Amino acid sequence: MSQPFEKAAILGLGLIGSSISHAIRAYGGAKTISGHARSVETLRVATELGLADSFHASAAEAVKGADLIILCAPVGACGALAEAIRDTVAPGAIITDVGSVKGAIVRDVGPHVPKHAHFIPGHPIAGTEQSGPRSGFPELFQNRWCILTPVEGTLPEPVAALEAFWRGFGSNVEIMTAEHHDLVLAMTSHLPHLIAYNSVATAADLEEVTQSEVIKFSAGGFRDLTRIASSDPTMWRDVFLNNREAVLEMLGRFTEELAVLQRAIRWGDGETLFNLFTRAREIRRGIIAAGQDTAAPNFGRTPERKP
Amino acid sequence: MSQPFEKAAILGLGLIGSSISHAIRAYGGAKTISGHARSVETLRVATELGLADSFHASAAEAVKGADLIILCAPVGACGALAEAIRDTVAPGAIITDVGSVKGAIVRDVGPHVPKHAHFIPGHPIAGTEQSGPRSGFPELFQNRWCILTPVEGTLPEPVAALEAFWRGFGSNVEIMTAEHHDLVLAMTSHLPHLIAYNSVATAADLEEVTQSEVIKFSAGGFRDLTRIASSDPTMWRDVFLNNREAVLEMLGRFTEELAVLQRAIRWGDGETLFNLFTRAREIRRGIIAAGQDTAAPNFGRTPERKP
Repeated sequence: MSQPFEKAAILGLGLIGSSISHAIRAYGGAKTISGHARSVETLRVATELGLADSFHASAAEAVKGADLIILCAPVGACGALAEAIRDTVAPGAIITDVGSVKGAIVRDVGPHVPKHAHFIPGHPIAGTEQSGPRSGFPELFQNRWCILTPVEGTLPEPVAALEAFWRGFGSNVEIMTAEHHDLVLAMTSHLPHLIAYNSVATAADLEEVTQSEVIKFSAGGFRDLTRIASSDPTMWRDVFLNNREAVLEMLGRFTEELAVLQRAIRWGDGETLFNLFTRAREIRRGIIAAGQDTAAPNFGRTPERKP
Repeated sequence: MSQPFEKAAILGLGLIGSSISHAIRAYGGAKTISGHARSVETLRVATELGLADSFHASAAEAVKGADLIILCAPVGACGALAEAIRDTVAPGAIITDVGSVKGAIVRDVGPHVPKHAHFIPGHPIAGTEQSGPRSGFPELFQNRWCILTPVEGTLPEPVAALEAFWRGFGSNVEIMTAEHHDLVLAMTSHLPHLIAYNSVATAADLEEVTQSEVIKFSAGGFRDLTRIASSDPTMWRDVFLNNREAVLEMLGRFTEELAVLQRAIRWGDGETLFNLFTRAREIRRGIIAAGQDTAAPNFGRTPERKP
């Protein structure tokens, strides 16, 4: 285990921020934690839960003396946060984030990073559909990947230190460019959320099928989409506004493929359907083999006997 | 508890057929079970597992003396199965099925049902992504809905008997027309499977993003779609071939909504995105309140510490 940071400043105490706090308490990574949240209510709950050693309504105050600063706000709020702290960032501090988009973070946060600090954008591919300071837990990052996208010219030592920080939580770490990150995540995360949100919107607008029927008979597949679609709306609005090009590119490909499937259904082309459906099993097997999902049927959801 | 059936003939011993067998053993519903499967290998495994009291390579043999006959084959195979048994169905027997489409079952099975039998199409809204005789378990139907779509003129007594059979497994039962069933399920099950299959196909065809990246970074949402997309290809081919009108209708609505979302992303319309994303949480809450999914974050999948 490498040296822990002296003081980690967590700016934003929602699902990811609070989980980082729990993970530091459980597995190490920093000797003390300072916490900041924009909302008074979040700060109050965070204090009650002991998510940090000191709490600050001012982000600039929170980062004083911190050698690790983690922006845990929605992507669209990180630029303002970086601007707010620019004058109190300690020399040699690492500034990182956890946002689902990296190009926009480089664009919005980059200009506010003082020359004496190291800027290493990051993204732990982990989460749940819940949000807020009460939703965090220490194991969230275990066996998940964390992607770092250091800008050109970043020194290897701070990257190694941040890598060790994430590995301490049980994460794997991969380095890539911000641009490539945004393309990969557009496919593995942003598009799935978009079509899940869209399915739920489609179901909500039907006339012939009632809301109550959609709910009752959701176990045929729909309920899984509603879980994804119940993620934090602010966070996801910011993702789509800030990864527009890559999301539209993936959406275009999705729509093209869908037209092929639609045509196969219309023309009764069972062979095309069967072949496409068969291929899908391969990727699932790969995901289970890579430890990125459970092999248990239905994700291990246990059926319960009615009372 | 009402009277159990004397003999249930289960024709097809995959996920649903084998689960019905386990459920009968665990909760009652029939005094004996006869089993039939088209494949020799399935029959062999079913015999090894003791899924029935007698096993038959011939469906016509299996239904002899049965007062309950359950077709558990893919929708496209049920017509031929009904034809194969028409001469050996006992007077007063109930013929039902478990297919995900009901209009096509009425169309294909109906003409082969002898006048002295009762035909009550059915559909338990339950399943996992697994298939085959080893995938069944007795609790599969607990707290799930089973839809029955009796044709006009069906007597109330056999419907009540079949209802009691499913309730004995812990299911709720709802009666509706085959046409309405096919519309509801097109939304809550067929469309979700179609877009899940389509997402996986889209991911498989990318050039800039490798298969290995798609797998590694799938925890951001994609992995959930791969579970749905690993369901039995034959079963799902038959669903789409046999519920074409309703699926194309729902797909048309889905595509329309998607165009609205796409436009909002392209034009940076955060308000439209936020409002739509917020609405989606309501339906999720309804599903959890109705006991149709777990409230546990991430479906309760437990993160595991790396070895």
